[in-house]
Amino acid sequence: MITAIYPGTFDPMTLGHEDLARRAAKLFDRVIVGVADSPGKRPFFTPSERVGLAADVMSGVANVTVTRFSGLLTDFVRSQQSWVIVRGLRAVSDFEYEFQLAGMNRKLFSEIETVFLTPSDAYMFVSATLVREIALMGGDIAQFVSPLVAERVAEKLRDVRPAGRPQRRITDQ
Amino acid sequence: MITAIYPGTFDPMTLGHEDLARRAAKLFDRVIVGVADSPGKRPFFTPSERVGLAADVMSGVANVTVTRFSGLLTDFVRSQQSWVIVRGLRAVSDFEYEFQLAGMNRKLFSEIETVFLTPSDAYMFVSATLVREIALMGGDIAQFVSPLVAERVAEKLRDVRPAGRPQRRITDQ
Amino acid sequence: MITAIYPGTFDPMTLGHEDLARRAAKLFDRVIVGVADSPGKRPFFTPSERVGLAADVMSGVANVTVTRFSGLLTDFVRSQQSWVIVRGLRAVSDFEYEFQLAGMNRKLFSEIETVFLTPSDAYMFVSATLVREIALMGGDIAQFVSPLVAERVAEKLRDVRPAGRPQRRITDQ
Amino acid sequence: MITAIYPGTFDPMTLGHEDLARRAAKLFDRVIVGVADSPGKRPFFTPSERVGLAADVMSGVANVTVTRFSGLLTDFVRSQQSWVIVRGLRAVSDFEYEFQLAGMNRKLFSEIETVFLTPSDAYMFVSATLVREIALMGGDIAQFVSPLVAERVAEKLRDVRPAGRPQRRITDQ
Amino acid sequence: MITAIYPGTFDPMTLGHEDLARRAAKLFDRVIVGVADSPGKRPFFTPSERVGLAADVMSGVANVTVTRFSGLLTDFVRSQQSWVIVRGLRAVSDFEYEFQLAGMNRKLFSEIETVFLTPSDAYMFVSATLVREIALMGGDIAQFVSPLVAERVAEKLRDVRPAGRPQRRITDQ
Amino acid sequence: MITAIYPGTFDPMTLGHEDLARRAAKLFDRVIVGVADSPGKRPFFTPSERVGLAADVMSGVANVTVTRFSGLLTDFVRSQQSWVIVRGLRAVSDFEYEFQLAGMNRKLFSEIETVFLTPSDAYMFVSATLVREIALMGGDIAQFVSPLVAERVAEKLRDVRPAGRPQRRITDQ
Repeated sequence: MITAIYPGTFDPMTLGHEDLARRAAKLFDRVIVGVADSPGKRPFFTPSERVGLAADVMSGVANVTVTRFSGLLTDFVRSQQSWVIVRGLRAVSDFEYEFQLAGMNRKLFSEIETVFLTPSDAYMFVSATLVREIALMGGDIAQFVSPLVAERVAEKLRDVRPAGRPQRRITDQ
Repeated sequence: MITAIYPGTFDPMTLGHEDLARRAAKLFDRVIVGVADSPGKRPFFTPSERVGLAADVMSGVANVTVTRFSGLLTDFVRSQQSWVIVRGLRAVSDFEYEFQLAGMNRKLFSEIETVFLTPSDAYMFVSATLVREIALMGGDIAQFVSPLVAERVAEKLRDVRPAGRPQRRITDQ
Repeated sequence: MITAIYPGTFDPMTLGHEDLARRAAKLFDRVIVGVADSPGKRPFFTPSERVGLAADVMSGVANVTVTRFSGLLTDFVRSQQSWVIVRGLRAVSDFEYEFQLAGMNRKLFSEIETVFLTPSDAYMFVSATLVREIALMGGDIAQFVSPLVAERVAEKLRDVRPAGRPQRRITDQ
Repeated sequence: MITAIYPGTFDPMTLGHEDLARRAAKLFDRVIVGVADSPGKRPFFTPSERVGLAADVMSGVANVTVTRFSGLLTDFVRSQQSWVIVRGLRAVSDFEYEFQLAGMNRKLFSEIETVFLTPSDAYMFVSATLVREIALMGGDIAQFVSPLVAERVAEKLRDVRPAGRPQRRITDQ
Repeated sequence: MITAIYPGTFDPMTLGHEDLARRAAKLFDRVIVGVADSPGKRPFFTPSERVGLAADVMSGVANVTVTRFSGLLTDFVRSQQSWVIVRGLRAVSDFEYEFQLAGMNRKLFSEIETVFLTPSDAYMFVSATLVREIALMGGDIAQFVSPLVAERVAEKLRDVRPAGRPQRRITDQ
Repeated sequence: MITAIYPGTFDPMTLGHEDLARRAAKLFDRVIVGVADSPGKRPFFTPSERVGLAADVMSGVANVTVTRFSGLLTDFVRSQQSWVIVRGLRAVSDFEYEFQLAGMNRKLFSEIETVFLTPSDAYMFVSATLVREIALMGGDIAQFVSPLVAERVAEKLRDVRPAGRPQRRITDQ
């Protein structure tokens, strides 16, 4: 039985993440979506919120569970009796960075195998970073995340941004 | 009549930006240089200063205007009755990022067309980020920006850096 | 006689950096490891500590010296009567960025030559950033840095992280 | 009035090519699809056949015409009173090659402007080379080319490959 | 039970290919090394020879078999009751091409999943093409292929190149 | 004393090659331009012609000599008492291929060092392949090669292409 870990910040889980997790779930016996605390990234959602969203989104897939972790990914992988890491590879992903991580992780835990999957064409350009920026500027994110995630993003924005005070963080590309 | 938007932070406008805007001005009826507020990038010049510099630099080109914007780029494009975005593509540009943005923007506004142009060889390695760093360390930026921009950068540096207090932000490559 | 400058933040010097410096030392008469202050990167080690570590690590190589610098790299190169910059190029390095820097530096100091070398396969995936992150999360960095560096990193961590208070900065990939 | 040239071998014209030509037709007053003879590539279809297919496919777009050419692309562009070349840029295209060509062409004809457009997501992975290989091995190309092109490819294959003699040219990836 | 197909020309099977096949064998229930006829590539070894070599090399791994195929890869995959393709991804591989193939294959057979694995560092620079060139010029290929393959390459070279007649096909890099 | 080898097909030597050789000549005591026979590439000029052209072009640089070689590059390097290979790295070069070669060469001859240099901006887009294609189609190559090379290319074209018989090999981009 093979357990694969699909790690990330998932801030929030996008349709691209969901697509990847479903693909992994067909390839491996068990898939654990590992939600990293990532305090250094100053996430929009708290770790618990991100775990909750991911769990809700993946609730229909029997062999997928969602777990929060902090610390070294290789330690987390080991703690789950796993040796397989799943990563998405978009034509526009940071391929160099992925390679470096896979190489370093193999040095830290030699039995580890990083498996790269490609998302559906439809999600080739979806990134959580851009989704957050679009939402913060009042754009519609319905085609990038599941309805449930879109709703929670909207709620969160109402909390952090009182009416009348314009949102200033923007993207200028 | 086609109006093209050339968006950016333009902090400050370099000769490479200027070259691109001139090229766009030959291809399209009207070009609007869209200066994004970009507070998240903590720009060196204020939005008004950046608009002023860009407007001065482009003043000799009849069909180019400069406008400040904040919020979603696609909203700005629409507000200008435009559907064309112009982006510079250097051999050393972040091609992956450009592709991702172009893809996301097309999803947000399906009629949008992102047109990539390449600057002259001479500006292939010029970036506003490096120009700022060179200026901050006392280097000569005369070959990267127009004389007017070079002068305003020098003035700004005198303001922010009192004599006798060494400048600490450096580049180490 | 050619003096080559090998610039970087070296926070801390890895086995990959060491490998590069040794290769450069065989190619050129003198090699100066230039440790940039890099306050903008908020380094883990102070400039003096980084210089000390690099000097210790390279002490066995006669024609290599270590010097701290701040300001423009091209100014530092000139001040050392040098015109050669050595840079490592990993398959996973930020090649675009390297090219841009080499191009800008040539514009600032036309006689400058940037020489790119490739590290040994064994260090292809080693980066100082990942080494710091692994150490901060309690991982073993022995295969990425020399014993002396590993020891100083451990000491530094004991200083900044009192026992009982869990380390929160993590990597989630 | 701007005439843009969209050059290629078009062996055969795919839905990706068609998409690009339609996008160009909205941006420029006139678009000329330039079908290069390309004898060096040993095309599957003759130049006349390729021109015929492209003309049929584009017949519904008023400002697009199809012309055969041989020799230097820059000479062809000049001969059509044009100074604009349109090229498709897929996330998976040979970006380096495109850049080199754009640079060389600008050196041969300094007023030339190469405009890069991106096809729809749906055509991001479609290439004429793969379409030919799939057809030659009996695969279904209906989702990569227009019905008319699919039909002519099938006819051509019946001509070149008598029944009973297995097709040997394959792709093995 | 998941059967994965690892397709290629394997002309000849290198230690890098072997490493990949072993990694795949740990991830999936069955792995079929699919040796493509690839007449278009004018292989050095015949298809039967390549199948023989691959089978010998992989004989110690219980769940790996070797099969020859021609025609569309997706047809071969289907014929083996498989829906998983394994591909090696080296930092120096033709990543763009791999992406295009994965995208096209998914369009031809929507259930297909292409799984990318990375070889060990030691094989990051090994390619069958370079191995053949080195052997043809009398270089030593012992560190790139298994002893059995090295021996067959030597035999083959004695057959195709009579003593006294210098080998002319070279690499010049 | 360090002897560096600058290998290539040099069919013909371009201004970009010349620029690289001059840069290498400043870095190393002796530079040998190694002209590979490369029969597999079906060169336009014979090996002797290519050696002659390169020698004429480099005649003004005292520490540069030109030598023809065939066989393994690493064998040639060793035979010249060298351990340094110089390669040009353009922003548009086949970086992946360069890396693979450097890696393989280091495996064949562990002391070897591949030194990558970048040409002047002006030659960033010059390739011998494009130069040949432009000349064959009657284009002007004066800005890509030295006058002497341009003249010999013109002579060679008169020989291979009788008047009245149109040149058919073209580039279509």
